[in-house]
Amino acid sequence: MREDDLVAAIRAIVEPAGAARLVLGIGDDAALWQPSRSHRSAITTDALVEGVHFSRSLMSFHDAGWRAIAANASDLAAMGARPVLATIALGIPPEATQSEIVELYHGMAAAAAVAGLAIAGGDLTRAPALTIAVAAVGEVRPSNVKTRSGGRPGQVVAVTGPLGAARAGLEAARSPGTLDGELEAEALRAFRTPQARCAEGRFLAASRNVEAMMDLSDGLSTDLARLCDASGCGAVVTDVPVAGPARALALARGEDPQRFALAGGEDFELLVAVRPRAFAHLAARFHGRFGRALHRIGTLREGAGMTFSHGGIEEPLRRTGWDHFEAAEARS
Amino acid sequence: MREDDLVAAIRAIVEPAGAARLVLGIGDDAALWQPSRSHRSAITTDALVEGVHFSRSLMSFHDAGWRAIAANASDLAAMGARPVLATIALGIPPEATQSEIVELYHGMAAAAAVAGLAIAGGDLTRAPALTIAVAAVGEVRPSNVKTRSGGRPGQVVAVTGPLGAARAGLEAARSPGTLDGELEAEALRAFRTPQARCAEGRFLAASRNVEAMMDLSDGLSTDLARLCDASGCGAVVTDVPVAGPARALALARGEDPQRFALAGGEDFELLVAVRPRAFAHLAARFHGRFGRALHRIGTLREGAGMTFSHGGIEEPLRRTGWDHFEAAEARS
Repeated sequence: MREDDLVAAIRAIVEPAGAARLVLGIGDDAALWQPSRSHRSAITTDALVEGVHFSRSLMSFHDAGWRAIAANASDLAAMGARPVLATIALGIPPEATQSEIVELYHGMAAAAAVAGLAIAGGDLTRAPALTIAVAAVGEVRPSNVKTRSGGRPGQVVAVTGPLGAARAGLEAARSPGTLDGELEAEALRAFRTPQARCAEGRFLAASRNVEAMMDLSDGLSTDLARLCDASGCGAVVTDVPVAGPARALALARGEDPQRFALAGGEDFELLVAVRPRAFAHLAARFHGRFGRALHRIGTLREGAGMTFSHGGIEEPLRRTGWDHFEAAEARS
Repeated sequence: MREDDLVAAIRAIVEPAGAARLVLGIGDDAALWQPSRSHRSAITTDALVEGVHFSRSLMSFHDAGWRAIAANASDLAAMGARPVLATIALGIPPEATQSEIVELYHGMAAAAAVAGLAIAGGDLTRAPALTIAVAAVGEVRPSNVKTRSGGRPGQVVAVTGPLGAARAGLEAARSPGTLDGELEAEALRAFRTPQARCAEGRFLAASRNVEAMMDLSDGLSTDLARLCDASGCGAVVTDVPVAGPARALALARGEDPQRFALAGGEDFELLVAVRPRAFAHLAARFHGRFGRALHRIGTLREGAGMTFSHGGIEEPLRRTGWDHFEAAEARS
């Protein structure tokens, strides 16, 4: 069973039942509907399961809660939506204590406060493993909605920050001491308390020159392939910004830092496709607003498939990120 | 760890972060927010876990999917909301096959079509047990919103249908042949493909004489106690309408049918508190519209606590339904 095959089977079952007020259904970072003529609401859901997405040896309950909220806030950011509220369906294993669940909620509340999400309700139930299923709702102006499917050949592809830090953090949590103190701390922060780019998402969504947007949750090589599939085009990647800890870890192992970053999941940076002539101005405004670069990583092009043009060599770029079914166990 | 204690601890953590546009947070059937000045949106979440809420020996994947959607549609019905969409976070155990997951989605799609919910998105992940976490969104006119807290002493308490059939169905699934053929079939239908009272909910929400509403998911004795707690009053129950299969099963065991029905969970009928002078007219209109009775079961009264006045004897009525933590394992 592969995730993308199963999603296709599911779409075939549920799409005939789509309601008139649904503006965007399965397949993007969030679904959209129309509560009233001039408004769009966005909803997304994302679950974290102990033993699949995290293990208590590598991450505290606080941080598991933080990540569950941050992942959903990031999906709203990718739609250009302002976060409004989240609901939590929590599955609690028999061995969990009330203080652990309280710690988990403190982590969720902290991430929700940063994102501007109110935790509005939930459901508590027994489960064989800790399971945190979050649904999050945001609001977006109809004219600001950005999907994955607006990419066109010639557009500049960019990301809102350097990549690979969360992957480096996972490895640092598994093998403490591999990285120097400060780099290790930075990597662990990126892995345990990632930042959803909500303000950046709203800024980019407000620009007419941003034609497509999504968040990076499964790794750039996997997520860019999804943007290309949805947009009906290909891409050439020329330059991947690599986070400091990812660069250090890759070099220490004799790996190429950009390849390490291309395969790293859960960075929660945003990936955008921008009209080429507008990119420089947009990047300057982005830098002025956030004090960080909007990194140009490549270009969309005609045809299917992605290539990585690096050190004078252009070669096929394959999905190297996480398929939640195939690689899940490797993750925790 | 008791469910109500944990909910109180959670509210203390998350409520300070409540956002301005949140109209109603934790504690009712659904949360409400305000997407625009003249609109209210409702959201609810509910999870079904294999081994806790169902087992594949008693229920097919199709029916597990149906129930997951119906439970959420019922929560929207209880707010008077029109169902709009649902998202699904699905945890899939290693032994599940793609055809089982497809069957599950067929059940969800069937229940969603009945409720008018579009399945708008989701998340698929590995999990140790099949876990179906649904979030559902509906829309309601601000003037039609009904909560649990509007009950006042003197109001009539009523339910939208006879109770106990789902409990009888659970027992019929465990011990086939205990009930006669037609009653057994009726009980199994109530247990496996329960009907959310969405149209009834909207009808009752539109009446100014309905002051409080909730759905019956954990049993009348437990859910009425929640309505009383939220409304700051007590109740006397005088007459519980008992579904045919529940009556037959109780009598065959020498049990009192009304007590059997009071403790039965997952009937998904609606519980309302109605202005006393308006009840007869409302019940007549309800019958005219739906061809079924709006059953008067008792009265709200001053003070805390509930009593059951039955066969000339008035005695304390305790919560006898399901606490999801204490009794969960007994359920499947």
